[in-house]
This record gives sequence, structure tokens and C-alpha cells, in this order.
Amino acid sequence: MRPLILVTNDDGINAPGIRALIEVAKEIGDILVVAPDKPQSGMGHAITINSTLRINPTNVTEVDHKEFSCSGTPVDCVKLAIGRLLDRKPDICISGINHGSNSSINVIYSGTMSAAVEGCIEGIPSVGFSLCDYALEANFEASKIIAKKIILNLLEKGLPNGVCLNVNIPKLPFDAIQGIKVCRQANAIWEEEFDERKDPYGRNYYWLTGVFKNLDGGEDTDEMALKNGFVSVVPIEIDFTAHHAIDEIKKWQL
Amino acid sequence: MRPLILVTNDDGINAPGIRALIEVAKEIGDILVVAPDKPQSGMGHAITINSTLRINPTNVTEVDHKEFSCSGTPVDCVKLAIGRLLDRKPDICISGINHGSNSSINVIYSGTMSAAVEGCIEGIPSVGFSLCDYALEANFEASKIIAKKIILNLLEKGLPNGVCLNVNIPKLPFDAIQGIKVCRQANAIWEEEFDERKDPYGRNYYWLTGVFKNLDGGEDTDEMALKNGFVSVVPIEIDFTAHHAIDEIKKWQL
Repeated sequence: MRPLILVTNDDGINAPGIRALIEVAKEIGDILVVAPDKPQSGMGHAITINSTLRINPTNVTEVDHKEFSCSGTPVDCVKLAIGRLLDRKPDICISGINHGSNSSINVIYSGTMSAAVEGCIEGIPSVGFSLCDYALEANFEASKIIAKKIILNLLEKGLPNGVCLNVNIPKLPFDAIQGIKVCRQANAIWEEEFDERKDPYGRNYYWLTGVFKNLDGGEDTDEMALKNGFVSVVPIEIDFTAHHAIDEIKKWQL
Repeated sequence: MRPLILVTNDDGINAPGIRALIEVAKEIGDILVVAPDKPQSGMGHAITINSTLRINPTNVTEVDHKEFSCSGTPVDCVKLAIGRLLDRKPDICISGINHGSNSSINVIYSGTMSAAVEGCIEGIPSVGFSLCDYALEANFEASKIIAKKIILNLLEKGLPNGVCLNVNIPKLPFDAIQGIKVCRQANAIWEEEFDERKDPYGRNYYWLTGVFKNLDGGEDTDEMALKNGFVSVVPIEIDFTAHHAIDEIKKWQL
């Protein structure tokens, strides 16, 4: 039996990145696509609890796979797929290919990765793919080869409980990519800068912008791998407990 | 000099929970409140990048502290406070008191906790407080005593880099609370159920609902602490790397 693959993303169901990932997934298994009906970048692990959700079939003409657009967040898409649209649990859940990096601290803000984390919470081996190129017309040819390789490994080997994968691919032609490195999340931050403007009524409003700063000098980080032309693969934990800090905080006067 | 305390939440600036936390914080230090202008529960670590942000002063009559409502998410509130409203980094960042539990897996979906995580990313000792009572008219008297004790410890002892605290308080009168336990995040999930309805035009829509399931039999979890009448304190990590899984995944054929 062909594996059942759930496909989602955060750039929306019509983004070139998810179309590339669908092409790869169709070569490997039966697929269900449930993806946002509009861009949902930066939505993190948001879920829709104060309003309603809608799902609509989008490819009524294609017979070999099903696609639904969803009015909610990437995490809503995974929940709806599993809770409502699928008769059985998918074998794997894949998210992306994101237009832009989700390396280091970006994993926390990323809708793409939150969808993979949600798949992982549901007990499904899950991976998020991102290409380090924000352009709509980004070239996904190298990413497709990388994604296929990782998906085949994921299907064969699975993942430890509570762990999913954050895969970032450098903006390079396939021949220039140096390899694939399993690494850790770099310690990096966004230094926020708010662009202040005035609306036509004279009131202030703001756009969130920022400058990315890698604070991590380590050789074993995703940022370093990408900088050196490697694909980075970071295993991500859904147990957020800082186990190493428990004894320290037990010393508090509580 | 009195410490500078940044206060936020996800239930919105007018929620009784944040009013209770403001009362506590004012006894301890100078405060800046930046909180969402509407409920933002379940927003996780979402940030606003596809639309604009507004901030408005809300207590123009009170002289002893400043409050601003923000059109964005809890994480936006923290970013705006630090990037735009404050001249210096706050000494601590406190979020809540949330109306409802953020224990175990809820930490991932929680706007309250994501605000604390964002404070932590910015290098500020941060804590999120939640009372296990979803009611608007919840009684925060015991929570205020607990919050004060933890805030005073936080100011005195600080936290390790990259670690913040997730504090959950059982719905009990203060005298019935058994103590404060430092613990780990329980392995628990929400089993989704989607409530399907028809709109006046005959089209389907869905409400996300679910049943909480604790899959963790451990004695050292937040769920167990709360069940036994203790306050749970879980240190939360912003390095999401599953370090223990790196060697396993290095064995893949990549």
C-alpha cells in the first residue's frame, strides 16, 4: 500500500513552494493537501478558537489526490485533516516548502514548522521544509531533490516520539549544495525595528521589521551549516521543559 | 531604584486576570502594561507581519504607571514594548494571569506563555501565570499571593539564559493550596473534535473543540502537581533542539 502523506504549509495553498512539495509527495504516496487559503507566515502555533473554520475542496478536476483550502492557521489545517478529513492517521506529515528561512529562532514564529510540530503532537512523523529564498519566483528544483531524499528516510526510519524535523535548504543550485548536516538550533535573535508611519487621518501605525543576529559561534548550528552551503536538519522537541534548570529553580524560596 | 516590570497577557488588557497581576506588580516595581486590545487566546507565538500594528494609551488618568493597548498578538506586545515604548530593558517580563490552564501541551498554543517566551528571547527573566479557571469572574486572590512570591524570587535569583517559567495555579482557595512544585511538562494531547454546523446559506463551518488527555503517568509532571493541589512551575526552554535525537538522525542515508 502506498503511504498516506498529509501536506500543508503557511504560505497558502497556491504558493509555488507547496506546489513543488506536492509534486514530490505524489511520486511517493497518496496525498491529502490541507493548506491555508491565504498567507499565514509568522502565525506560529496559533489555533482558531474565537471564530469559525471553513474548508473547501480546491481541485475538483484532479482525481489522483485531494486538496482543501482552510480559512484557518497551519495548525488548524493539520487538526482538521486528522480530526475531520482523514479516515486513518497519515503515515507522515510534511509542511512547506516555505518561501524563506525557518532556521534557528525562526522555528518559534514559523507557521510551517508549527504545522510539523502539530503533526508530531498527533504522533505522526513530521517535517517542515524551508528554502532560504523569500521570492515568490524562487527556484525549488534543488529543494525537491533534497525533500524527496528526506521524506524517503522519514518513511523508512521514522522519528523518536515527540521529535520532528526542521529542514532548511540554502539558496543554491543542486550541484553547489555541499551536503546535508544534522545540527542544533543556533542561538540567534531578531532585533526589532518598528517602522512608524502616519495614516491618512494623522494617527500613528507600525510595521514590524527587524535585523537578524546570529549570536552563536558554534560550528554545529543550522546557521553555520547554511552559511557553508549545507542543508540543515534540526530535530525539534515538543517537550519544552528545560530539564537542566529544574534543580536550580527547586532552590528558590517557594 | 524600583525594578521595571513589563506586564502583558493574552486575554486582553481589560481581563480581570491582568488587572490582578497589575495590582501585584505595582506593589513591587514600576510597571509598563502593553496588552492586546482584544482576546488573543490560542495565538501561540504568532506575530503580525502581513498587516499593521497600532498602540494606544489606555489609562491617561493614572499617573503611577503607563498602559497601552495593542492591536496585535501577545508577542507583538512584548516586541513593541521593548522596541518602541521603553527606554531601557525591563528587569522582568510577566504575563497573565491567564483565565484557564496553560499546563503541559497547552504551553505550545498559549499566547500568555508565548509572550513570556518572547521576553526570554529578548534576554529578560520572564514568567507566565495561569489560573486553572476559565471563568471571567474567576477568583484571583490566591493567584496574587503565589504570583508575588514567584516574582520576588525571579527578581532576586534571575533565570538561566534561554529559560522562562510556566506557572499554573489550581482553582483552590489559598489555604487549600498544598505548595509550589517545580516539575516537567506532562505528555498530554487534545483529541480534536470539530463541531460541524450549517450557516444560514447552507454551507458547512466548524468550531474547534476537543478533549484533553493526559498520557503521562509520571509523578513529576505539572498535571500531577495540579491534580494534587499544588502550583506547578515548569522551566521552559527556547532552544527547541532535540539534542538526544541528533546522533540517531545522523545515521540516516543523507
